[in-house]
Amino acid sequence: MRATLIYGAGDVRVEDVPDARLREPTDAVVRVVRSCVCGSDLWPFASRPASERGDRMGHEFLGVVEEVGAAVTAPAVGDVVVAPFVWADGTCDFCAEGLHTSCRHGGNWGAPDVDGGQGEAVRVPQAQGTLVRLPVAADSPLLPALLTLSDVLPTGHHCAVTAGVGPRTTVTVIGDGAVGLCAVLAARRLGAARILLMGRHTDRTDLGGEFGATDVVAERGEEGVERVRELTGGDGTHAVLECVGTRPAVETAFGVVRDGGAVSRVGVPQYAEVPMDFGVFLRNITLTGGVAPARAYIDELLPDVLDGVIEPGKVFDRTISLDRVADGYRAMADRTALKVLLRV
Amino acid sequence: MRATLIYGAGDVRVEDVPDARLREPTDAVVRVVRSCVCGSDLWPFASRPASERGDRMGHEFLGVVEEVGAAVTAPAVGDVVVAPFVWADGTCDFCAEGLHTSCRHGGNWGAPDVDGGQGEAVRVPQAQGTLVRLPVAADSPLLPALLTLSDVLPTGHHCAVTAGVGPRTTVTVIGDGAVGLCAVLAARRLGAARILLMGRHTDRTDLGGEFGATDVVAERGEEGVERVRELTGGDGTHAVLECVGTRPAVETAFGVVRDGGAVSRVGVPQYAEVPMDFGVFLRNITLTGGVAPARAYIDELLPDVLDGVIEPGKVFDRTISLDRVADGYRAMADRTALKVLLRV
Repeated sequence: MRATLIYGAGDVRVEDVPDARLREPTDAVVRVVRSCVCGSDLWPFASRPASERGDRMGHEFLGVVEEVGAAVTAPAVGDVVVAPFVWADGTCDFCAEGLHTSCRHGGNWGAPDVDGGQGEAVRVPQAQGTLVRLPVAADSPLLPALLTLSDVLPTGHHCAVTAGVGPRTTVTVIGDGAVGLCAVLAARRLGAARILLMGRHTDRTDLGGEFGATDVVAERGEEGVERVRELTGGDGTHAVLECVGTRPAVETAFGVVRDGGAVSRVGVPQYAEVPMDFGVFLRNITLTGGVAPARAYIDELLPDVLDGVIEPGKVFDRTISLDRVADGYRAMADRTALKVLLRV
Repeated sequence: MRATLIYGAGDVRVEDVPDARLREPTDAVVRVVRSCVCGSDLWPFASRPASERGDRMGHEFLGVVEEVGAAVTAPAVGDVVVAPFVWADGTCDFCAEGLHTSCRHGGNWGAPDVDGGQGEAVRVPQAQGTLVRLPVAADSPLLPALLTLSDVLPTGHHCAVTAGVGPRTTVTVIGDGAVGLCAVLAARRLGAARILLMGRHTDRTDLGGEFGATDVVAERGEEGVERVRELTGGDGTHAVLECVGTRPAVETAFGVVRDGGAVSRVGVPQYAEVPMDFGVFLRNITLTGGVAPARAYIDELLPDVLDGVIEPGKVFDRTISLDRVADGYRAMADRTALKVLLRV
């Protein structure tokens, strides 16, 4: 079968790999119908050291179940399913608490001996705990929206939930990438009336406005902090959703959060330390968030996606075929595409 | 009147200062009956640069109201009252949210033109929002316990509350100082069944056991982390209450917190940055806490102190008179006293 591998910065290839097949009774094999490129894929695309052996890529996919192991009761062969961006058994104590990313028997797509999502098929470990059946046909026009359940939508939602967003919270979202826009969508869905979106790509912030942003702040750094403070009577907002992952974004987050408020971070951290000094201590700022346990949120988010109450599929502004995936990486790295959908 | 000033590291003096008197209609004057030395007072006692002008010290006191301004309806002259360690108006939006430490018209004891608590009397700004009437006589045997409502008990409580401690959480408390011990007491009071206390002074950890600690971990650093992990099946605890304020204590906290858990810090930070790297991100660790809005918690804690359900007064293991306050600082700095009570 064909699948995507990365060999170094800027070097993404689609190659023949061994076919996905059952190994464990808890496995399923899913034929991929849609996959996509994640903002977090851009970090290795920017800086991975070159090597002779490639790594499998992709952690967002939906498709049709082709085969299930003897221990898998559901889903069934023929079901259309979506996979969250980590796999998990769904039964351990961490999964029971909704922290599937810390599952005692879980793991990552594209790890050694595990397929990546950007390929024709995937062996899904812990299939029963991992896969979620979607009540649609394999050619549904809702597929792009449903694919966002794999990562980008629950990541934005996790950011909003851990920051405590609700009807009484004011919110700043930092970053106008697909996760930032989904964080806007999630904050609006959770009832936030005032949502300030910090971003400077007007096509993206326009979509942010559709998703529920009430104000757009194009300024960055100190100017951006000042602008948010101006817009909030000097105080900043209760919740700050940090959807970038860089140190400057975290510093901006601390600058715009209201005393007693929370900064939640879901951008993969490109930093090792954060400022939590005496000034932050006096202001009782909480820093929360982390990798989103997407599986924990899919059941809650799925009905609103099916009903069209939210339309997260709008984050995909380009669709390409699997064999052109490298073009998709480049388009996202160049910021000419917001998020690239792969037809497989 | 006599009051305590600090002139430099190791240099604490009791001197004549201008008498406390009303300045604003919102003021009261309180004659101090009991005050004490705080662990946080030891930071300037260890390192304050020497100067010719001293700073007033002390932020924990209870006493008798001697005079009130025209705008003060309560408390009344003659009332026994306790003051939280910051003063606040009690009416602004932050106070209404329980964040009196960010009050729009509040401030610190011992700031310029504001008395400190380690003295014979205090002008209390925003007296109506700040002072809490105590239904006891000025010579009640409960005075030491009631004085802990000023800072050390609500600080431990804030640590436990912000970390989300409840009946289903396991807890590690880092630090066997008076705040750490009050954090144990607060965690127990909030229902935690398993409380691991990290400390190596057996007289203090013994009191921690009385307060509710179920396990004591005397090891520090990596060994301490390993020991807590051993005691918790490898996982660490849901909540970690960091009651020291040093960088190694924060690192220990991240080492012993369970995935998805919270580290709350109430030790005054002697560091500017904390490790919040990719590994912490993957584990979904929340860092919370900060300076405790003591006033917000006194109404809840007072009944249990009055009824003797909790006995936080046991943290005082030495009582001295105001004129010997420097001895109290030294005893706490040398670790020969846990917390020193001042009779004024």
